Amino acid sequence: MAEFSRVGLIGRLGSDRVQLSLKNLISFLNNRGLDIVLEQETAKVLPGHDMEVCNYEALGKSCDLAIVVGGDGSILSASRALVKYKIPILGVNRGRLGFLTDIVPEEIDSLVGEVLDGKYMVEERFLLEMTVHRDGQWVSGGDAMNDVVVHPGQFIRMIEFELYVDEHFVYGQRSDGLIVSTPTGSTAYALSGGGPLMHPKLDAMVVVPMHAHTLSSRPIVVDGSSDLKIIIAKHNHTKPHVTCDGQTHVITEPGDEILIHKKARKVKLVHPLNHNFYETCRTKLGWSSSFDR
Amino acid sequence: MAEFSRVGLIGRLGSDRVQLSLKNLISFLNNRGLDIVLEQETAKVLPGHDMEVCNYEALGKSCDLAIVVGGDGSILSASRALVKYKIPILGVNRGRLGFLTDIVPEEIDSLVGEVLDGKYMVEERFLLEMTVHRDGQWVSGGDAMNDVVVHPGQFIRMIEFELYVDEHFVYGQRSDGLIVSTPTGSTAYALSGGGPLMHPKLDAMVVVPMHAHTLSSRPIVVDGSSDLKIIIAKHNHTKPHVTCDGQTHVITEPGDEILIHKKARKVKLVHPLNHNFYETCRTKLGWSSSFDR
Amino acid sequence: MAEFSRVGLIGRLGSDRVQLSLKNLISFLNNRGLDIVLEQETAKVLPGHDMEVCNYEALGKSCDLAIVVGGDGSILSASRALVKYKIPILGVNRGRLGFLTDIVPEEIDSLVGEVLDGKYMVEERFLLEMTVHRDGQWVSGGDAMNDVVVHPGQFIRMIEFELYVDEHFVYGQRSDGLIVSTPTGSTAYALSGGGPLMHPKLDAMVVVPMHAHTLSSRPIVVDGSSDLKIIIAKHNHTKPHVTCDGQTHVITEPGDEILIHKKARKVKLVHPLNHNFYETCRTKLGWSSSFDR
Amino acid sequence: MAEFSRVGLIGRLGSDRVQLSLKNLISFLNNRGLDIVLEQETAKVLPGHDMEVCNYEALGKSCDLAIVVGGDGSILSASRALVKYKIPILGVNRGRLGFLTDIVPEEIDSLVGEVLDGKYMVEERFLLEMTVHRDGQWVSGGDAMNDVVVHPGQFIRMIEFELYVDEHFVYGQRSDGLIVSTPTGSTAYALSGGGPLMHPKLDAMVVVPMHAHTLSSRPIVVDGSSDLKIIIAKHNHTKPHVTCDGQTHVITEPGDEILIHKKARKVKLVHPLNHNFYETCRTKLGWSSSFDR
Repeated sequence: MAEFSRVGLIGRLGSDRVQLSLKNLISFLNNRGLDIVLEQETAKVLPGHDMEVCNYEALGKSCDLAIVVGGDGSILSASRALVKYKIPILGVNRGRLGFLTDIVPEEIDSLVGEVLDGKYMVEERFLLEMTVHRDGQWVSGGDAMNDVVVHPGQFIRMIEFELYVDEHFVYGQRSDGLIVSTPTGSTAYALSGGGPLMHPKLDAMVVVPMHAHTLSSRPIVVDGSSDLKIIIAKHNHTKPHVTCDGQTHVITEPGDEILIHKKARKVKLVHPLNHNFYETCRTKLGWSSSFDR
Repeated sequence: MAEFSRVGLIGRLGSDRVQLSLKNLISFLNNRGLDIVLEQETAKVLPGHDMEVCNYEALGKSCDLAIVVGGDGSILSASRALVKYKIPILGVNRGRLGFLTDIVPEEIDSLVGEVLDGKYMVEERFLLEMTVHRDGQWVSGGDAMNDVVVHPGQFIRMIEFELYVDEHFVYGQRSDGLIVSTPTGSTAYALSGGGPLMHPKLDAMVVVPMHAHTLSSRPIVVDGSSDLKIIIAKHNHTKPHVTCDGQTHVITEPGDEILIHKKARKVKLVHPLNHNFYETCRTKLGWSSSFDR
Repeated sequence: MAEFSRVGLIGRLGSDRVQLSLKNLISFLNNRGLDIVLEQETAKVLPGHDMEVCNYEALGKSCDLAIVVGGDGSILSASRALVKYKIPILGVNRGRLGFLTDIVPEEIDSLVGEVLDGKYMVEERFLLEMTVHRDGQWVSGGDAMNDVVVHPGQFIRMIEFELYVDEHFVYGQRSDGLIVSTPTGSTAYALSGGGPLMHPKLDAMVVVPMHAHTLSSRPIVVDGSSDLKIIIAKHNHTKPHVTCDGQTHVITEPGDEILIHKKARKVKLVHPLNHNFYETCRTKLGWSSSFDR
Repeated sequence: MAEFSRVGLIGRLGSDRVQLSLKNLISFLNNRGLDIVLEQETAKVLPGHDMEVCNYEALGKSCDLAIVVGGDGSILSASRALVKYKIPILGVNRGRLGFLTDIVPEEIDSLVGEVLDGKYMVEERFLLEMTVHRDGQWVSGGDAMNDVVVHPGQFIRMIEFELYVDEHFVYGQRSDGLIVSTPTGSTAYALSGGGPLMHPKLDAMVVVPMHAHTLSSRPIVVDGSSDLKIIIAKHNHTKPHVTCDGQTHVITEPGDEILIHKKARKVKLVHPLNHNFYETCRTKLGWSSSFDR
């Protein structure tokens, strides 16, 4: 596999443990004689350093590996920022194992070392592209690696909307809203809403209703190439919100159309060779790993 | 699209309504000057007829359309019997709408007519191939269009087994068993077990645990090309059964391996042009079709 | 049973159908020679009338029956307002059947007539009393007939809290919040959150987690005499809200204690003799009423 | 509280660990100068002993405490056998903590000692009485401390039945059957079927459908004094079974009526003072005990 020579570093802000891991990582990468570039916000938590600093765009264009230190959320935001470049992303967790960050701080030397030695696998993950249209005009939009959530903004206010898949009417629903999730997001909010787990390599999205008024509503898994459309009902008393990965919020008006489909370009995640989705599930979801009696 | 000239008829046995629909269908096809072939068991319920009779093999090889009169179960068994031939299958329900049989008796003239006029769509559905291996040797097997269910045979007896996907260990489980379902089966037993709906064109299988002892067990959706393996634990007190589409039962021994993967050849279902999966869901699952206040 | 001579009328505002039903009801009650009192807000939608008008307190003290015209929500608010008096409440729905309002407009003459003739049953329902305490001091509170919901206020913001029942620690939880529901509320929001149905005469509350981060979280049913305490975790980034029956909102601070227990005084609901909880379930929840094949 | 002077010992058969715990227990009780009586089947696993031996009836009548060594299932069967006598029951688990057996082997000296010193609490649990009637005649019956399960006997065969509570028709259902559970059983099979947890002191039963054909079917919690009736539909192709606590099986005929209600006499469980239902839930169900970040 390809060798890496210029590495961009991105760290979750506001965490002492992340700062410590970043320093260990820099020392380790320096020893291996690699070029290191710091993402500009990350650089601020490392006062007194003498390394090159750049923004996401320059980092994405000039580096051949990005290492992200933080939780799964840090990988999500780095992925949304870097998806337009070819750069692959490796995650180092600040504490315990994540679904996306599968190297813990104590393993930096061994596992990051292996990756730099060419012992790694690359996994592609797709993102969702969400746009809001009003009277036929684009209003706003965003990208999501986990999920797009349509919800009332304020709690305890049901919303009404219609769901279409590939221009086919699916249902009209009154509920707390809808989660549209990628396989990546199927271990996050969608799971707590009753959605199924989806293996990362599955090319599919799941639509999970939240507290639906109709008891027969169920999660629906559709092909990854599907075009989803959610029409906000004219007579909603509230202005439903659309949220990507729990971060950006768009406020809709009655009649707005929310379009969701798979982004053409995918993100490349780098994993050590021992990476295993099901093992992460067993650890993080509390499955017994073998027969208990 | 292709025209049909020689039609094989297959009917669910033991139903007066099916017999009546078969007669109407024969009369209708005769009027259109088509060659009609009767499946040999079906022929027995039509005493005194003068039509050609043959078995599934001859029917599959010689006809260019099979029309099945019955419920969804009749389509499942015809599909399992005919999957090895190229013949497409059209379903006529004996009463109310089914998920697979979307022509009701009153619509025979209009909708079967449209199909024969070339106004139809063809949808491919895949089947699962299940084999049981003991000490490395093939023991038994079967095909399923809806689902393969591993269960204790007798009720109120938990079984223990391990699940592997593409040779990766997923979990060991104590439960009433496991449902492995196609998208076609996702509206059947898997749904009552808490599985998600899957659109028919999705290339995926879902694994649904039944009454699992671990509360964190959830349905898992995996790519349609996955190889599933279930190993029956050595210390089971019962001999778990494997059932395909609720029909054939194989009795396992401790240590047996059950292999499940997608069958290479698919079944072609013929639908009238107004066929719509989501509309069938709305009707049969009781979703409200629009906003209710 | 007791006869009714002085009837208070309460109507849901802003509905033409309610206004029409109120007029029919007034005409019907006048013909039977009963004293009629209008709740003061309700009176405003009946301009030109010549009836006595009073507030909830006077209505509750002076009348021997309250008739509420509206939906289930109208019964909830009338119950919260009148629970401190002995007056029983009869519900007339403005359209389709409700769980609490079991007389539809066309049945006013027959079923309200039967009730006035003494052919009725009385069912007691309990309410929850919720109080918020900060540093040992009472801050705010409210009553709920359906449910008390602790939630983040804003959507897509998890909250953290601890639950205690009768001073026993139950769990610490990260989730979208918690629904504490009476049997009356078990057919409302708690049901859409995965809670069980509870028969109205059951003396119990159910605690339903919303989108809990722990997959093994389940609804817990506790005795109606239990004292529940929810402690808002110190480190929440948001200020969780407490909502009674979806109406009143109290905003909490980290460390606040939310106490919930059954109100000593109950509400009396009057039903026609044909009232049947399970029949309402079958109708409104879409159960098949008999074997379907 | 009362002192205990004559103790009956009951052990789960076929377990070396149980045999060892029994010996430790006998030695401990001898040192305290208590009379010991061995249940007759239990006595067989302790060859060479010189203690008094008797059956359940004599043990129940003559002892003032029964100590059961085994798992939760051992407490269930001892409870069913001893419910007709006044004797309280203490459970010692052979390995890890159970829901009913809250003393582990290492704690025999300390915790059984405390109980004998009068430091204990007594908790009453109710049992269900199930009877099957055919053409108005009693056919068979049984007691259950966890649950009564109506099921097809053979797997993958749906059954049809009607449910009545206190003579009110609830629903007709096609499913894999029905679990009727006590609060004690709510942490067992009913939980894996989607039922709620019920606190042991709650006077209620829950009815949990298994793989119901109707998506809107939900667990229903009814008052503990309710009379449940399940009528086996006339046209079932199989003969549904009724199972009490997973042990005794009664085979029904079409048209049979299964009656279930609370047994008048309750079982007394003795617990050390540190016993706590919610702590057991946290341990055994995998709830996090506090906020995780």
